[in-house]
Amino acid sequence: MVREDGRKNEQVREIKIHENFNIHAEGSVLIECGNTKVICTATITDKVPMFLKNTGKGWVTAEYSMLPRATEDRSPREAAKGKLSGRTMEIQRLIGRSLRSAVDLYKLGEYLITIDCDVIQADGGTRTTSITGGYIALAFAIKKMLKEKMINKNPLISNVASISVGLIKGVPMVDLKYSEDSSADVDMNVVMNGNEEYIEIQGTGEEATYTRDELNKLLDLAGNAIKEIINLQNNVIGDIR
Amino acid sequence: MVREDGRKNEQVREIKIHENFNIHAEGSVLIECGNTKVICTATITDKVPMFLKNTGKGWVTAEYSMLPRATEDRSPREAAKGKLSGRTMEIQRLIGRSLRSAVDLYKLGEYLITIDCDVIQADGGTRTTSITGGYIALAFAIKKMLKEKMINKNPLISNVASISVGLIKGVPMVDLKYSEDSSADVDMNVVMNGNEEYIEIQGTGEEATYTRDELNKLLDLAGNAIKEIINLQNNVIGDIR
Amino acid sequence: MVREDGRKNEQVREIKIHENFNIHAEGSVLIECGNTKVICTATITDKVPMFLKNTGKGWVTAEYSMLPRATEDRSPREAAKGKLSGRTMEIQRLIGRSLRSAVDLYKLGEYLITIDCDVIQADGGTRTTSITGGYIALAFAIKKMLKEKMINKNPLISNVASISVGLIKGVPMVDLKYSEDSSADVDMNVVMNGNEEYIEIQGTGEEATYTRDELNKLLDLAGNAIKEIINLQNNVIGDIR
Amino acid sequence: MVREDGRKNEQVREIKIHENFNIHAEGSVLIECGNTKVICTATITDKVPMFLKNTGKGWVTAEYSMLPRATEDRSPREAAKGKLSGRTMEIQRLIGRSLRSAVDLYKLGEYLITIDCDVIQADGGTRTTSITGGYIALAFAIKKMLKEKMINKNPLISNVASISVGLIKGVPMVDLKYSEDSSADVDMNVVMNGNEEYIEIQGTGEEATYTRDELNKLLDLAGNAIKEIINLQNNVIGDIR
Amino acid sequence: MVREDGRKNEQVREIKIHENFNIHAEGSVLIECGNTKVICTATITDKVPMFLKNTGKGWVTAEYSMLPRATEDRSPREAAKGKLSGRTMEIQRLIGRSLRSAVDLYKLGEYLITIDCDVIQADGGTRTTSITGGYIALAFAIKKMLKEKMINKNPLISNVASISVGLIKGVPMVDLKYSEDSSADVDMNVVMNGNEEYIEIQGTGEEATYTRDELNKLLDLAGNAIKEIINLQNNVIGDIR
Amino acid sequence: MVREDGRKNEQVREIKIHENFNIHAEGSVLIECGNTKVICTATITDKVPMFLKNTGKGWVTAEYSMLPRATEDRSPREAAKGKLSGRTMEIQRLIGRSLRSAVDLYKLGEYLITIDCDVIQADGGTRTTSITGGYIALAFAIKKMLKEKMINKNPLISNVASISVGLIKGVPMVDLKYSEDSSADVDMNVVMNGNEEYIEIQGTGEEATYTRDELNKLLDLAGNAIKEIINLQNNVIGDIR
Repeated sequence: MVREDGRKNEQVREIKIHENFNIHAEGSVLIECGNTKVICTATITDKVPMFLKNTGKGWVTAEYSMLPRATEDRSPREAAKGKLSGRTMEIQRLIGRSLRSAVDLYKLGEYLITIDCDVIQADGGTRTTSITGGYIALAFAIKKMLKEKMINKNPLISNVASISVGLIKGVPMVDLKYSEDSSADVDMNVVMNGNEEYIEIQGTGEEATYTRDELNKLLDLAGNAIKEIINLQNNVIGDIR
Repeated sequence: MVREDGRKNEQVREIKIHENFNIHAEGSVLIECGNTKVICTATITDKVPMFLKNTGKGWVTAEYSMLPRATEDRSPREAAKGKLSGRTMEIQRLIGRSLRSAVDLYKLGEYLITIDCDVIQADGGTRTTSITGGYIALAFAIKKMLKEKMINKNPLISNVASISVGLIKGVPMVDLKYSEDSSADVDMNVVMNGNEEYIEIQGTGEEATYTRDELNKLLDLAGNAIKEIINLQNNVIGDIR
Repeated sequence: MVREDGRKNEQVREIKIHENFNIHAEGSVLIECGNTKVICTATITDKVPMFLKNTGKGWVTAEYSMLPRATEDRSPREAAKGKLSGRTMEIQRLIGRSLRSAVDLYKLGEYLITIDCDVIQADGGTRTTSITGGYIALAFAIKKMLKEKMINKNPLISNVASISVGLIKGVPMVDLKYSEDSSADVDMNVVMNGNEEYIEIQGTGEEATYTRDELNKLLDLAGNAIKEIINLQNNVIGDIR
Repeated sequence: MVREDGRKNEQVREIKIHENFNIHAEGSVLIECGNTKVICTATITDKVPMFLKNTGKGWVTAEYSMLPRATEDRSPREAAKGKLSGRTMEIQRLIGRSLRSAVDLYKLGEYLITIDCDVIQADGGTRTTSITGGYIALAFAIKKMLKEKMINKNPLISNVASISVGLIKGVPMVDLKYSEDSSADVDMNVVMNGNEEYIEIQGTGEEATYTRDELNKLLDLAGNAIKEIINLQNNVIGDIR
Repeated sequence: MVREDGRKNEQVREIKIHENFNIHAEGSVLIECGNTKVICTATITDKVPMFLKNTGKGWVTAEYSMLPRATEDRSPREAAKGKLSGRTMEIQRLIGRSLRSAVDLYKLGEYLITIDCDVIQADGGTRTTSITGGYIALAFAIKKMLKEKMINKNPLISNVASISVGLIKGVPMVDLKYSEDSSADVDMNVVMNGNEEYIEIQGTGEEATYTRDELNKLLDLAGNAIKEIINLQNNVIGDIR
Repeated sequence: MVREDGRKNEQVREIKIHENFNIHAEGSVLIECGNTKVICTATITDKVPMFLKNTGKGWVTAEYSMLPRATEDRSPREAAKGKLSGRTMEIQRLIGRSLRSAVDLYKLGEYLITIDCDVIQADGGTRTTSITGGYIALAFAIKKMLKEKMINKNPLISNVASISVGLIKGVPMVDLKYSEDSSADVDMNVVMNGNEEYIEIQGTGEEATYTRDELNKLLDLAGNAIKEIINLQNNVIGDIR
């Protein structure tokens, strides 16, 4: 079976990273993964959530949204509907959790870093691309904090990156584009760090199931892809000190 | 390390199932897993979602809620706040997806089965207990549909059950109660069917990570627990025809 | 005319009271009145409403909700609709007002007691059963406050209990079950204390009216029923000191 | 005890009725009861609620609101807060129920009459004044329907009018103005028809209670006042045919 | 072309001003412009918006609403729909901005004046009538503040008044009533002060356009009308000191 | 006085237009005006608003939003707050009205074209840039409709473009950037077509006023700038047939 766009099963789409895409944000990137394009910005404030006041601990949170015409058919704005969909909340909670695990929140000190991930064009993998790009925006913000002596030590523990894998007609594949994702039996998002450890695995059989053996194949594919992506991240980010 | 309530690491809390707990619902159960208590009811209607009208295909959906004082501290009602939290939406989407995978939706025909999972007392594992109990309510509703000749063939494909596993100070344990869950480094919910296949794996490092080896130990624990639970389900449900 | 379930016109359905139904709440009860079942929990906090700050006066408030399948047909959750219905607000205001009249709010001191009444199965009389059960949960919470020396004097003034009465085809009856309630011409909820005094009377002609004479007969029925119910309450609550 | 404005205990404030206050509405009135002023308009449409479609039965409903500066202190608009308060819902349900009892809904046929009661200045008794004035607006709309031959028979069964009564320091009084209402121990709203029958009684002890004997005195006061008010209504409305 | 109500193109409808219409408000007026009737009240509080705390500067804000049956067809209440329409927000922002320009906010000191404009009957020009009447209510409130020595100096800079103009089939006309407004090609609202200066011009071609020359004719008409209206305002307001 | 970025008072910032920025939309553009960047997409559907069903007439509407970090300080998402701000509604109504005037809606036929304007970076003039860019996206969509024979005749009447002008310390200037806009006394947005006619003028004195003479100077500046901008639009759009 050949993939629609000619890729091999273990091949990730081309990833392009445009750094400092936004003149206002403390860190920012426009990340493209094939036709999926996400603007990630990092905002630093000293307003940590209530439960962290006077604890010396900071926080990282994320918000996620899609422009209405990011998708093939236009989707109504959540602002117009007056509430976030379950899907949006689920995704932004995932991004936030994943990026928090990249940071020693005590070393960060009482700062809040908000990562906004705005999908301006979607073709599958918007949440994994948001995590991968969000990490870069976060790293840029940390570099700025170190440079401006807001903090003294680098609070980053390890890179965080993410990729989707799935089973299509029983065949494990990496980095599903939208048309593949819609026809996948099993859809799995994997978030890992630079030490080949897992931060999050979310694997869903869509009116289908998967065996332990299939799980292992999917995890192998994801692990290799994430190693590559972390290299790309590091090339863009450079030294942090 | 001995667990707070004296259980072994691979030991599930006692599960009690009170069938036909509700006089109105087409299927119902009060399920207890230790101090966690959930009322699950199944409601059958012929109002399938718009996208299924005239397709011959049915649907299973789920809603989840906690009474305000199900928890140690009272939590405000979502109805009073005017919106569902991200956590609630995430959980009810998980329950719905999991139970849908138990059913051949074409055999079900154009019916909607709504599973309501209302937690009246919480002590960890409310979402996994909801899935396990929700399956029983669903099976009772299917038996009623068969008996009343609303459908001719049993649309159930396989049992669906769920359990939580986690790493506490590096030790893998099954069925975390609330106090364990709060201190776990890694928290994983596993949903499986009667053929030892996965329907959903959601494994999260909470400001922590886990290795491939730890993942495997957690999946072993979950697999054994779910086998036991499926036996309990079948004892209550009996024959379906 | 014989009533559907064989009761006499002046006969209340069997009331069962399961005390300490919830391990977390400061006071709790599962109260059954025929097929109507309500979980009542009392939560004590020191967060009085703004207008009582630094007045030395406490407050009692109530919230009321029904599980979606408490009723014969499933009703959508108010949390999903994003707002409380007029009916719910009316009922929880009534419960709160009624229970407040049981308490000397100055003796209570600056505490807030929240009574949650969650109907898990409904068959008429859910608001009156909530008041009767809510009083017991409140009394348990007061006993706990006295025992733990949060307060020194018993702030309870008198029991509070409630029952419905109505006219069905001109005949006065007590404690209407759902099928009776739907066909009643006049529906009246009466809340009284242990001194045969009224706290609240709400009597509504549903596209119908009632005379002064009929009003008097309904009040006689309610008065006798409430005397009985207060005895039941006292048996469960025991001495308060 | 002399009342603040010199009235006797059984004396209603002066009621002024300005008919046809609005050029657009099918029936309208500005009613003043002392300093309380309410604009009541009746709107006729053929859009009955869903549950009445094709039943041949009509409906009467009511909405109630206060201008923000109707009260001594300005209250925020419910439209700005994004929801109706419990108090507003309770009142508009009461007005709707009361006015529905004035009409034979089958004779009305499949029409919806909406009575809007907008309080432009408040000094106690806004809900009872709304009912009294709402009936007049309703009657004007009915006259118009008869004149324009939208209906053939007068569907009005009887007048509906309302007054408040209360106990102030143990003394029964009628038609409480705001300053009296705030200091009343017991507050009761009575809705009656032209045959001295009750449509609704709502009597509330505000952190207080009342005896059977006090109830009877309050009902006597209300009955006499309502008789007077119904005469006023009839003078304004004139013959209906 | 003769106008529907016989007016000349440059003729404003009769304006009636009923001062002190409300017993509670610090300033109030019922203003009528033909069949358009608006109640304007001014409320003074010492709660300035957050961004003005401790700046010595005050604020003027406005809210606007229409009674549901102010219009020919009944419009649903915004409170019931749970949000303000774009039209309402646009109008109340315009009124607030316009009236703020009448006041030296530093001379006002840290007070908030809220102007509520409630349209009880509408026939075109509700926003311009609200501005004209809102200024009078504001001036009355200022007089009261001066009299009660809340402030020492008159903070009013100049009158503010407003009128609509428009092009109907190419003919410029002033003060459009509703039927004219609906058929106008160009609709312009002009807000000016007592020195013939502009505070706001909003001119909209409704699926149409207008030339520089037409603009000039419309501005001439508006200027003359506003001069007249300011005279009317001053007659009612009298001396301010 | 020299402007902050060295521009002359009558000089517009550099405008860059990236056409076909989005692979999904029927027409799209990324437009930059200095540091202000807006993505405009056009979506064609056959779902006209209810009031146009079966009239043969189409509709053009617009939505406007800013990414949270488009601005110097991050602004909370309207989707998270659950409602659109008054500012957003005002702007999207302006864009929609302006673009509708570019189209003969009967020639368009029963199609709805939705123009989404998403500001990804803001530095003043976001609404005028949205109108200018929105027109280009609209024109591309029309070209596509003609090419695909969805319509036969070009429904475009004329270009539509917009610019801001303002008075800063009494000096008229064109195309205010954010820092200029915040300190302007008078802020005016002008929308014109290709025949030097006005579609909309919105001129606001911000706690200030302007004379007829100043108005004329501002309109001269705007007219010249819009002529230039329309040339740019036409270079990008090319022939329409």
